[in-house]
Amino acid sequence: MAGLPERVQIREVGPRDGFQNEPEIIPTGKKIELIDMLSRTGLPRLEVTSFVRPEVIPQLSDAEEVLAGIDVPAEVSLSVLIPNERGLDRALAVRETHAGPRPAFDEINVFLSASETHNRKNVNRSIEESLAGLEAVLGRAREEGLRCEGVISTSFGCPYEGRVAVERVLHIARRLRDAGAQEIGFGDTTGMANPVQVDEFFAHAFASIDGARPASGAGGETEPAPGGGSAEDREVRLTAHFHNTRGQGLANALAALQAGVESFESSFGELGGCPVPAGATGNIATEDLVSMLREMGVQTRIDLDALLACARRAQEILGRRLGSHTLVAGPVDWR
Amino acid sequence: MAGLPERVQIREVGPRDGFQNEPEIIPTGKKIELIDMLSRTGLPRLEVTSFVRPEVIPQLSDAEEVLAGIDVPAEVSLSVLIPNERGLDRALAVRETHAGPRPAFDEINVFLSASETHNRKNVNRSIEESLAGLEAVLGRAREEGLRCEGVISTSFGCPYEGRVAVERVLHIARRLRDAGAQEIGFGDTTGMANPVQVDEFFAHAFASIDGARPASGAGGETEPAPGGGSAEDREVRLTAHFHNTRGQGLANALAALQAGVESFESSFGELGGCPVPAGATGNIATEDLVSMLREMGVQTRIDLDALLACARRAQEILGRRLGSHTLVAGPVDWR
Repeated sequence: MAGLPERVQIREVGPRDGFQNEPEIIPTGKKIELIDMLSRTGLPRLEVTSFVRPEVIPQLSDAEEVLAGIDVPAEVSLSVLIPNERGLDRALAVRETHAGPRPAFDEINVFLSASETHNRKNVNRSIEESLAGLEAVLGRAREEGLRCEGVISTSFGCPYEGRVAVERVLHIARRLRDAGAQEIGFGDTTGMANPVQVDEFFAHAFASIDGARPASGAGGETEPAPGGGSAEDREVRLTAHFHNTRGQGLANALAALQAGVESFESSFGELGGCPVPAGATGNIATEDLVSMLREMGVQTRIDLDALLACARRAQEILGRRLGSHTLVAGPVDWR
Repeated sequence: MAGLPERVQIREVGPRDGFQNEPEIIPTGKKIELIDMLSRTGLPRLEVTSFVRPEVIPQLSDAEEVLAGIDVPAEVSLSVLIPNERGLDRALAVRETHAGPRPAFDEINVFLSASETHNRKNVNRSIEESLAGLEAVLGRAREEGLRCEGVISTSFGCPYEGRVAVERVLHIARRLRDAGAQEIGFGDTTGMANPVQVDEFFAHAFASIDGARPASGAGGETEPAPGGGSAEDREVRLTAHFHNTRGQGLANALAALQAGVESFESSFGELGGCPVPAGATGNIATEDLVSMLREMGVQTRIDLDALLACARRAQEILGRRLGSHTLVAGPVDWR
């Protein structure tokens, strides 16, 4: 199969995106236990909590305690979700006072929707208002030396508005990039994407976002644009975040790989990710993604058995069966 | 996305493969109701029952009654599974005495495994013994004017033996073809396949089975082999039958489409398909496959809403929630 990247980087979002969607409050100690386990599976990046207001998401009101309690190897990059400047203030306060061999966290994520209606319903702002606020957050975070990702929800379709124009999504991506985001995540928030759309989307994205480059060998590879800033300044990573709402999550991931995407977000145990309607699947399971990549010979450096142990432990803690397929079936056994 | 076929043909296997795996006996009247519903969704082909010995699979012991009771439009091709010559005798007796505007069925399927151990455990024969028996079945069925498919289980891996050599699978395929099969189905019986493997497998298969041709436009397209027999005699269709055991079913289907496969088997409601271990997913859900194809612009002529109504009705009859994703989430709504 031509054009696949040699290796792929996965950010595990279960401790933030997954836990946030759990109806029962998970004890802080259990969250810390799971994050510590996840950080020893070979996963290079973990999104561990969020600095939204505690009244809005009580499940993540223990952000400070989680960051103080976890024991994560320095080579694992930790990110936290920041909704606005107040959230950034809280996060920076934690980082300044943090004691220990490594920083409390290394990266921040900010987010907005590509659809006005979805953004309004989610954060009660227009896209323009969100962008203005996030530009301020990104500017300050970069000054603090934090790596920054901007995540764009409903990048492949909106449950309220239907089609979302690719040009609108890419316009938002460029705004985030210009404000300092070194990575843009494109979220298929309600699982509307299909492989043909994903292929075309990333071909456009790599062609029209300065500093974004597909994996070498992928169909869409282009020469780096000449001039303007150092390579360091110009590089921006494009990340795919798929949901499995209609069972197409891994097919979309395959299409993204073929289009040159080397960075993915997913959630262990298939936790979280806007399960709408109730009972629907949200995020693709990290185990299923890692299983597919491993079988295809794409390197992730993640120990699938260790990752499955994390999902099994989450299943015990949450007291219900999780949706990940590989968790039930086990890894492929070639004897 | 280059190389996708314009249209795809799906055989619905739920009434045989799906029902067979149900622990409770489904009343014959309910089976007939579901088959009649399925036959009005635009599905071109249905596998409706099996002529295995009633003691072996009590669930399908009503094969005669089902075929006598259904009311299926003439343009829908019906197939039955035939394990051996005794099963063929029973099936032909039904066909001879069948009254009505259309034949009782149009096609037969025969099956064996590509792995000795799996074949032995499944039908208590060596592969060579199975082939000898099936060659006799195929010869007689062709004389009766029946269209014939040979299905090869564990084509992409065996839970007992691990890797299964592609050459061994293709050798069996050629034997079945030479014995009269006009279609070869390759089954990923326990969901061990991955997209890279699927891509390579079908490239080999199209290149080395006389009369097998990938969809025009697909990467692997080759010129028809010259000489020997009429086109009618030589053509053989290659069909992919994937399971979603590790969540990769639709990703494998995408890889098969890109390799030029235009024919798939799947099961409505995600019923059946060797769910091993217990609780694991078996067949890919027809609704999920149709949803993906529809969204990608590949024609199937299947009415997704009508198909979802069948799965919803099966859910009522079986009294449990079925696994199909699109059944829970509904079709993608672009407004």
